[in-house]
Amino acid sequence: MMKNQRTSAIESGMKLTDLGEKKIIKYLEQFLDIGDDAAYLKLDDRYLVMSTDMICAKTHLPKEMTWKQIGKKVVTVNFSDLAAMGAEPIGFLLSYGSPDMNFEDFDGLIRAVNKQCIKYGAKFLGGDMNQTDELILAGTALGISPKPILRSGAQVNDILCVTGYLGSASLGLDVLAKSYDLKDLKDANEVLNSVLEPEPRIKEGILLRKYASAMTDISDGLATSLYDIAEPSGVGIKLHLSEIPLLNSAIKVANELNLSLMDYALYGGDDYELLFTLPEKNWKEIKGKINATKIGKITEKEGGIIGIKDGEEIKIKRGGYEHFCKKSNFLEKHGKYPETVKK
Amino acid sequence: MMKNQRTSAIESGMKLTDLGEKKIIKYLEQFLDIGDDAAYLKLDDRYLVMSTDMICAKTHLPKEMTWKQIGKKVVTVNFSDLAAMGAEPIGFLLSYGSPDMNFEDFDGLIRAVNKQCIKYGAKFLGGDMNQTDELILAGTALGISPKPILRSGAQVNDILCVTGYLGSASLGLDVLAKSYDLKDLKDANEVLNSVLEPEPRIKEGILLRKYASAMTDISDGLATSLYDIAEPSGVGIKLHLSEIPLLNSAIKVANELNLSLMDYALYGGDDYELLFTLPEKNWKEIKGKINATKIGKITEKEGGIIGIKDGEEIKIKRGGYEHFCKKSNFLEKHGKYPETVKK
Repeated sequence: MMKNQRTSAIESGMKLTDLGEKKIIKYLEQFLDIGDDAAYLKLDDRYLVMSTDMICAKTHLPKEMTWKQIGKKVVTVNFSDLAAMGAEPIGFLLSYGSPDMNFEDFDGLIRAVNKQCIKYGAKFLGGDMNQTDELILAGTALGISPKPILRSGAQVNDILCVTGYLGSASLGLDVLAKSYDLKDLKDANEVLNSVLEPEPRIKEGILLRKYASAMTDISDGLATSLYDIAEPSGVGIKLHLSEIPLLNSAIKVANELNLSLMDYALYGGDDYELLFTLPEKNWKEIKGKINATKIGKITEKEGGIIGIKDGEEIKIKRGGYEHFCKKSNFLEKHGKYPETVKK
Repeated sequence: MMKNQRTSAIESGMKLTDLGEKKIIKYLEQFLDIGDDAAYLKLDDRYLVMSTDMICAKTHLPKEMTWKQIGKKVVTVNFSDLAAMGAEPIGFLLSYGSPDMNFEDFDGLIRAVNKQCIKYGAKFLGGDMNQTDELILAGTALGISPKPILRSGAQVNDILCVTGYLGSASLGLDVLAKSYDLKDLKDANEVLNSVLEPEPRIKEGILLRKYASAMTDISDGLATSLYDIAEPSGVGIKLHLSEIPLLNSAIKVANELNLSLMDYALYGGDDYELLFTLPEKNWKEIKGKINATKIGKITEKEGGIIGIKDGEEIKIKRGGYEHFCKKSNFLEKHGKYPETVKK
């Protein structure tokens, strides 16, 4: 009986990996209201905004990360979801699980969590600790916003923008994974810094809640985030690939290694930047106040999600990191498996 | 330099298991405000109350639990912490990690989470999903209270009370772990129900926030919870062991297996009940409205934490379940290792 209410793609006996994270979440959206970067609840004249994100050593953390960097990152990934809703953080909780370890490392991690909370005006409110086989950090961030910016608000003719620089974090992950020897240590360090010391775009999100029509963070990759805005908004997107902001150091590192930084920018993920849309007239309100770049335009739905590259239109396919996914999306969609996608 | 600021018990090179969960939390309390059942933040004229609790298959879940029961339990353990603060739940988030599994089991778990949220007036707001080696569920509950009831408010001459019945959940865990054959299936089922289908004492917590001076949940065991109230309140406790409420079915099962139900009640844990103190004059306000039992009295600090058993005074030692603990507390404190403590 229940079966009939399910999406047709789901059949009895299926495993989670037969579906993949995105399809599972789509299914759950049928009875749960969970389709944005963070959850929100109205409380009087404002909104509580909440996000929970789990970091697992195996899938999320390069072995080069220090304990302090891990502590900082679990706060950043959760605050990034608040930033994407235009919320300011007020509190943070941590459910911690690990095998036995040195107390001083644990202490360093906890102090780094606390420091990152204080940096963004939030209070580290404690949590729970457990002995587990693998390192698991489940953070929960609580924030407040007078008006959460959803993914679904993009309007035809809005401009599409992004904060910061894309692709350097996932490029950095590959540099670490493959232990590449790099010529320029300064460039290499800047690239590695993107993956080891990411910061959430809280200040940007707070400014943008006045001007943006839709917003999401792009930690799962730019390509998938374009769909995350276009689908619920019922619009199309024209993306100018040449406008995508790239770090000079990342360009140099990618060139040296003969890798396509554009692939990392589109499909790599791990960039804790904000993708947002706004009416063209609002651009002057944010220009110069935050580091943001116009990269495209919102079109009618029928236009699809199109990239302009060297004057030609190319279709941008959904892709990026996904849990419970048997095949890399990149492989599935692009037919090749470059040095560009987290495994 | 930092070393001098640490508690003297912590030395360089120590492991988490050299300290144990309780000592680690005591250390963290020096710079974090984390010493109660849940965290709270003032927002206008009320408080946001938040708790996060991680459930790991290995340490928390008997293999007999169904996926639906697991989903229900992760909500209960978090809502129980809200209940202990006198808060009403408004929202719940789940960070989910598991190996690949049947989609229908996952679906059953998620629907059970949703159902348990709705039962207590809260909204299941989504969360995060990850592929992990072991099953890990990190829940976060958000609630509201006009006045959080802390552990630290107990006053000399207050009476000490507890909701529900104690010891049956941990007795049930042992019945499952050891596959005991039991004569009376009805009794056995009632005992097993305490561990497989626990409910949070939300209604009780909401009533008690008007009358209680201190409150905590006793999921780590009654003995350790006595200390959790006595130490921050700066008081002593006289506990009448004969008054501790026990389920008839649990008494019969424990007798049949020649086990001490009192040991389970004091040290077993997993009872999602509330331990609270209140001025004697307030007893009439709650009597008959909730299932609660007077079990003792608050005394001067110098009195210590004392149990009265057959007219004689016995010292109740701290004990109960603890992560990162090399030895069972029960073993350490009591010199024997009965069938009573979760391993």
